[in-house]
Amino acid sequence: MSRYVPSSELVERAARGEVPAIGRLISRAEAGMPEARGALATIYRRAGRAHVIGLTGVPGSGKSTLVAALTARLRTQGLKVGIVAVDPSSPYSGGAILGDRIRMSDLVNDPGVYIRSMATRGAMGGLARATLDAVDILDLGGFDTIIIETVGVGQDEVEIAKASHTTVVVSAPGLGDEIQAIKAGMLEIADIHVVSKCDRSDANRTLVDIKQMLTLGAATSAKPEWQTPVVGVSSYTGDGFDALTRAIDRHRDVAFGTASGSRRQLAIARFRLEKTAENLLVERFARAAVTRAPALAERLRRRDADPYSLANELLAASFERGSAHERDHHRPPHFAEDHW
Amino acid sequence: MSRYVPSSELVERAARGEVPAIGRLISRAEAGMPEARGALATIYRRAGRAHVIGLTGVPGSGKSTLVAALTARLRTQGLKVGIVAVDPSSPYSGGAILGDRIRMSDLVNDPGVYIRSMATRGAMGGLARATLDAVDILDLGGFDTIIIETVGVGQDEVEIAKASHTTVVVSAPGLGDEIQAIKAGMLEIADIHVVSKCDRSDANRTLVDIKQMLTLGAATSAKPEWQTPVVGVSSYTGDGFDALTRAIDRHRDVAFGTASGSRRQLAIARFRLEKTAENLLVERFARAAVTRAPALAERLRRRDADPYSLANELLAASFERGSAHERDHHRPPHFAEDHW
Repeated sequence: MSRYVPSSELVERAARGEVPAIGRLISRAEAGMPEARGALATIYRRAGRAHVIGLTGVPGSGKSTLVAALTARLRTQGLKVGIVAVDPSSPYSGGAILGDRIRMSDLVNDPGVYIRSMATRGAMGGLARATLDAVDILDLGGFDTIIIETVGVGQDEVEIAKASHTTVVVSAPGLGDEIQAIKAGMLEIADIHVVSKCDRSDANRTLVDIKQMLTLGAATSAKPEWQTPVVGVSSYTGDGFDALTRAIDRHRDVAFGTASGSRRQLAIARFRLEKTAENLLVERFARAAVTRAPALAERLRRRDADPYSLANELLAASFERGSAHERDHHRPPHFAEDHW
Repeated sequence: MSRYVPSSELVERAARGEVPAIGRLISRAEAGMPEARGALATIYRRAGRAHVIGLTGVPGSGKSTLVAALTARLRTQGLKVGIVAVDPSSPYSGGAILGDRIRMSDLVNDPGVYIRSMATRGAMGGLARATLDAVDILDLGGFDTIIIETVGVGQDEVEIAKASHTTVVVSAPGLGDEIQAIKAGMLEIADIHVVSKCDRSDANRTLVDIKQMLTLGAATSAKPEWQTPVVGVSSYTGDGFDALTRAIDRHRDVAFGTASGSRRQLAIARFRLEKTAENLLVERFARAAVTRAPALAERLRRRDADPYSLANELLAASFERGSAHERDHHRPPHFAEDHW
């Protein structure tokens, strides 16, 4: 397509469920295009209907396969499913990921499923903001359940998984101690624990381990309406997915119908507000810093001065009169028209 | 200890190599204590002697074991080694990590080795800043080689690994496609590739794969003075560590003695300048936002307004006259004296 379609026009198309418009809006959100902000603001105010599931786990825990199997299951319930993968290892490129059982291409070709990978590098600190914007775009587009898949390593990724109505943490048997240790940091964020690969003989030990860790941590739980379940599944045999979808349904009721659900929504709103503000701030600063940073970096390299003094110098220069007003409403000139 | 020791005093102790002072300064840097900034500024200007090695790889690649084995080797050359682990899965808690060969406790009890894990969560965006401050503190303390170990997943972690003189990327055989896929994003940042676990029979395939990927990418290389080597090691048998330490020595000469080394140091300085500025900015904003954010988040939760308008409102409130001057030179009251 050669015409640059204004974002406001894309909003109306996305609201009718048109997938190309949804994709282009997500690209604009991801790139942090100032032109798209008015549209994203409109979208936010019109969204808020979908059930957002954050799903996280360490590499090798079988997250993507599980997301595919869960999506297939939700489709049989007639739900439209959006998947936002914040995970450089996600294999959403079309190949077979479950052998003969479910082919990724079945999902890719299903108009009731939308799969999108977010670029995790170079997002100028705006990964969380862009991801949550993508969720709203899908919400507006009529997707009932939106799964944010993140790799559970790295601060941003774990925070993004938390910024959902229902957080699912995936563990797997046999990953070894080094990997499982990461899990400790993810234990407390789970609303639902899933142990994948339960066709393996060593899965039971992982199930028992997690239940034990949960019992130890129970006293500190801040969720009176909810007992965190531990569900074993096998994406290969399909076992456990009934229990998992039931757990998700039950948690949806908690998320939308209880006081702790409201508190959670407020916490998500606060997270989003702060991430958006940080992103705008850092972006405004980065733009203003372009001219000043090289000379300051050279002084820093020579150790003529220290990072703190020079950073303050850079900040002062970036926020001197006038520069605060440069921030909005012009499309960066290096974005080619036909790309967006 | 019950007396609060001023950071400036700790600097002099750290410069004499006193480990408790080094540890306390790193804690203060990690917490972003404003009182410590003058000291960190001094330290930066006095540091710059150590060889900084960034070592990264996906979970399960055997990074920590490799770091331990490499450290033992560097010790035999008489070098003092600092290890800064930005990796929630690092097993630096004292147990045996190499069976009978090298015990972590041997390193822990060696005064020529200092091991420190950085908190990767809740660092208020200051992880890179704090990590590089920690490196300077160790540099001032007389450590010759400083290894920053990061898990190669997540934008921050990969960037931190890049912010070193020599970046080592660790791969391992048998991790499966999902994990290896992450590696693609780390391929271009390596100055030295290491394949660990080369006692395994499938290691050769991993070596060949990486060499092949490097050949494909060779045309885009921006390092005329350097051919990226691929070194196979076994932390278990000790094989390959001679080649690895030789490669590290050779790259050190490039880092400190060539034009591309100078450009790299300038890029590191720029990264550091921008990370420090971002951190100061976000921190100043977060402090100012405390009073305003709750009410704005509530409006956001009700979708009465959108994240962008409210974020701009929050920024305007945070940076209105006066608030920019609150940022410095008072210790946060909730830090207990004897903790620091």
